Amino acid sequence: MTPASKKVRPIRRGRSDHQQPVSSNVDAPYITRKLPCYNLLEEEHLVRIEQHADRILCEFGIEIRGDTEALKLFKDAGAEVDGERLRFEPGLVKHLVQRSTPAEFTQLARNPKRSVRIGGANTLFAPAYGPPFVRTLDEGRRYGTIEDFANIVKLAYMHSSIHHSGGTVCEPCDIAVNKRHLDMVYTHMRYSDKPFMGSIITPQRARESIQMCRLLFGEEVVEKNCVILGNINVNSPLVYDGVVTSVIRTYAAAGQGIIICPFILGGAMGPVTPAASIAQAHAEAMVGMALTQLVRPGVPVIYGNFLTTMSLRSGAPTFGQPEAMLSYMVVGQLGRRLGVPFRCGGAFTSSKVGDAQAAQESAQSLLPALMAGSNFVLHAAGWLEGGLVAGYEKFIQDADRCAMMVKMFNGLNIDDNAFAIDAYRETEFGEHFLGSTHTMKNYADLHESTTADSKPYEQWLEEGESTEEQRANVIWKQKLKDYQLPKMDRSIDESLLAYMEKTKASRADQWY
Amino acid sequence: MTPASKKVRPIRRGRSDHQQPVSSNVDAPYITRKLPCYNLLEEEHLVRIEQHADRILCEFGIEIRGDTEALKLFKDAGAEVDGERLRFEPGLVKHLVQRSTPAEFTQLARNPKRSVRIGGANTLFAPAYGPPFVRTLDEGRRYGTIEDFANIVKLAYMHSSIHHSGGTVCEPCDIAVNKRHLDMVYTHMRYSDKPFMGSIITPQRARESIQMCRLLFGEEVVEKNCVILGNINVNSPLVYDGVVTSVIRTYAAAGQGIIICPFILGGAMGPVTPAASIAQAHAEAMVGMALTQLVRPGVPVIYGNFLTTMSLRSGAPTFGQPEAMLSYMVVGQLGRRLGVPFRCGGAFTSSKVGDAQAAQESAQSLLPALMAGSNFVLHAAGWLEGGLVAGYEKFIQDADRCAMMVKMFNGLNIDDNAFAIDAYRETEFGEHFLGSTHTMKNYADLHESTTADSKPYEQWLEEGESTEEQRANVIWKQKLKDYQLPKMDRSIDESLLAYMEKTKASRADQWY
Repeated sequence: MTPASKKVRPIRRGRSDHQQPVSSNVDAPYITRKLPCYNLLEEEHLVRIEQHADRILCEFGIEIRGDTEALKLFKDAGAEVDGERLRFEPGLVKHLVQRSTPAEFTQLARNPKRSVRIGGANTLFAPAYGPPFVRTLDEGRRYGTIEDFANIVKLAYMHSSIHHSGGTVCEPCDIAVNKRHLDMVYTHMRYSDKPFMGSIITPQRARESIQMCRLLFGEEVVEKNCVILGNINVNSPLVYDGVVTSVIRTYAAAGQGIIICPFILGGAMGPVTPAASIAQAHAEAMVGMALTQLVRPGVPVIYGNFLTTMSLRSGAPTFGQPEAMLSYMVVGQLGRRLGVPFRCGGAFTSSKVGDAQAAQESAQSLLPALMAGSNFVLHAAGWLEGGLVAGYEKFIQDADRCAMMVKMFNGLNIDDNAFAIDAYRETEFGEHFLGSTHTMKNYADLHESTTADSKPYEQWLEEGESTEEQRANVIWKQKLKDYQLPKMDRSIDESLLAYMEKTKASRADQWY
Repeated sequence: MTPASKKVRPIRRGRSDHQQPVSSNVDAPYITRKLPCYNLLEEEHLVRIEQHADRILCEFGIEIRGDTEALKLFKDAGAEVDGERLRFEPGLVKHLVQRSTPAEFTQLARNPKRSVRIGGANTLFAPAYGPPFVRTLDEGRRYGTIEDFANIVKLAYMHSSIHHSGGTVCEPCDIAVNKRHLDMVYTHMRYSDKPFMGSIITPQRARESIQMCRLLFGEEVVEKNCVILGNINVNSPLVYDGVVTSVIRTYAAAGQGIIICPFILGGAMGPVTPAASIAQAHAEAMVGMALTQLVRPGVPVIYGNFLTTMSLRSGAPTFGQPEAMLSYMVVGQLGRRLGVPFRCGGAFTSSKVGDAQAAQESAQSLLPALMAGSNFVLHAAGWLEGGLVAGYEKFIQDADRCAMMVKMFNGLNIDDNAFAIDAYRETEFGEHFLGSTHTMKNYADLHESTTADSKPYEQWLEEGESTEEQRANVIWKQKLKDYQLPKMDRSIDESLLAYMEKTKASRADQWY
């Protein structure tokens, strides 16, 4: 701004003069958040929830069904064991968790630039996990195949804001149930160079997933580092079946990380009031986390959370509702008090398509998770229909939101450049800053969505009145065309393929 | 939970036994938030922003163009006046705001149960303001009419989470420009009993809006209470034109509330870096707020904010992007430091339709605004296409989100009922809580969306594969069928109609 009597035109620079600063965090392998976590409850109320979790574990206890080894570990650690029922003195489970669980840890990727730091101020995004179906706008919904699986791995590999290749990005239903984990792990390894997850269906499949990592990373690296993650769900309320605890023990014994995730729809696997479900989930998660530390003290483990609601009309799960948002934020506080890495959130929705409902529920799942300090956001892209479906378009829509979260949680610059005092010197009162030197130097730092259409109405009309879902359809097809296979040492690839062949040959196909 | 050896079936009650607790806040005339505001920046950085705002006002100043009375008020209050340029010593404007601006105030509605408290821990939602166009799924986009205006007022009246009838909910383009404010104010008064806003286009139209309030509420009530609100935009950067300041003076002199809202797209009306635009907006808003207090100390005024970004590809405004979310949160902190009521947020989008883009951008505008402590959320329902369009379906979709925010910001119960200890006594390990007495007593408190479809896929297929926008289309039509006109004293109605007739007869139609 200059005195009104001396009108000065903004300086205009040619295109070649543009300096395009790159957002410092956009290509980072994960977010290191610059924004504080949101503290919803005060200390006093958090203590009440922790005390209630302790009360549940002391008064009612928790069951581990069909795993005498796990029961023995807990008995030796001071729990009261009555058949398959475990009871804990108040404070005991928390102590077992806290005495050796790392506050943060690194999961190695085969490309070291893609290794991720999990816990503390770090956050990463991983694709949806577990859908038996896939959906495209062209074909609608159908069963997933290994080709779909590879496609989603490729899309995750190509998107800079999807930091982790995930696990069962869709079920490859064209491969036998007892063999497909080999193909899934191989696909993550071969078609991406980001970190990934392994099978948790049986201890054998978990072991085989980890064995493939030994071929990829080398035995010594696997012994000393986390190179694969498992994610298990508790059989809420207050039960671990023995397969789950055996899988936990398998990952922990191998020094690999595992996410312990109670799965609670309020009113079904926990009481309908969020405070109770939060306390129950806290109790359940702590027991699973403690088990990992009893198996191998210091092994990485993640405090997982999946608390949501259900529809009174349909009995189906609902997502992004107020109760879930509140729960995320409180569970985040509990996780920080435990001092452990925390998984929550994702692009959840019960919608069948990538419509407004899907976007809204997903936004109200993703943003609160970040505010809550989630370190590991599984299901961050592609989730539709309560997790039954991996949507190709939804993946692209969600990945666009993940990029927004990367930008947002990278924080707000408060420095001399950000205050732009020179821009006022060259811009008139009431005039715009578009041509100012400062704008030209800094405009490339502005975030822009890849899927949104902000063009004028007339242009949008002419271009076919697209919805965002339709634009996402174009984007994923182009991305798959542009995909380039990351390099892999041929001998490693051959050893992986040979291991898979041998393992598959050792057993008959099972289809259920 | 009971010992595993004694299996007890959950108690099941008949439907007539259900006790349906009502969410305490759902039908409240506004939200009284139970959740803390989010503090993004630390004190030190907030002070830097405030100092930068002071620097702008001291070094460059601000212009008031064509309003000698406003200039004189500022001169008398200690500002340095040079032609139309005002400069302020650091701290002066803040002092002028803080010495008499109420921290909160009540806007009366003609139905006392609908009166709203603005500021402090209170938040209200009002419809989109200003769109010349409307859109329905049936007709697409077209110019708005007074019938559309009335329809939107009716929808806002009927939705318990839209607390305020708003202002120009769409432009009634079928009525002359210089007369339509009368019809708009009358429509708010007659078709709703919620609080509303008046014209700000010229001081005369502002006066006439307020005069109609005197007929509705009585002269004495209007003299002593806020019964109408204006919302003005600053001619950013750093200019108020004299029409705007005259309108500010008109509302303030009549003791009525006004929102002072800088309107900044980063890179256009302010620098492209958010910190600078935040500081500039803070400077601009404080000057307008100070003006109200110079006219009439103690008159209600709201610290407004409209900071967003623009597309580098199209030059159009963009919404719900990371920069806007960060800005809301910081401006909220600045507002709390000033100690004044704060307006920000809304269901913003540049999308043309109620698709995923619209929902996502709106969610990333609404939730951050609430986290930021917004007291007055204008544009909370119906906004499409950068504010050019009021969408009927979008209104219904957004109002559904507003209800979620009402529920969420009503907080989390942490009491004995919420902890549900008895539910564990009657529910088995690994079994569900659906039939428990506690669930039956509390399930009605679970939030459920009115527009989401969480039904099974097959049912959704059979019912026509609807998107949320299509379901919203059905809902608004039904609502308008169900609408019932609130009662109004016939003599008041007649006096309003007579005033309108007389005023309209006094001038020729103007159409631009």
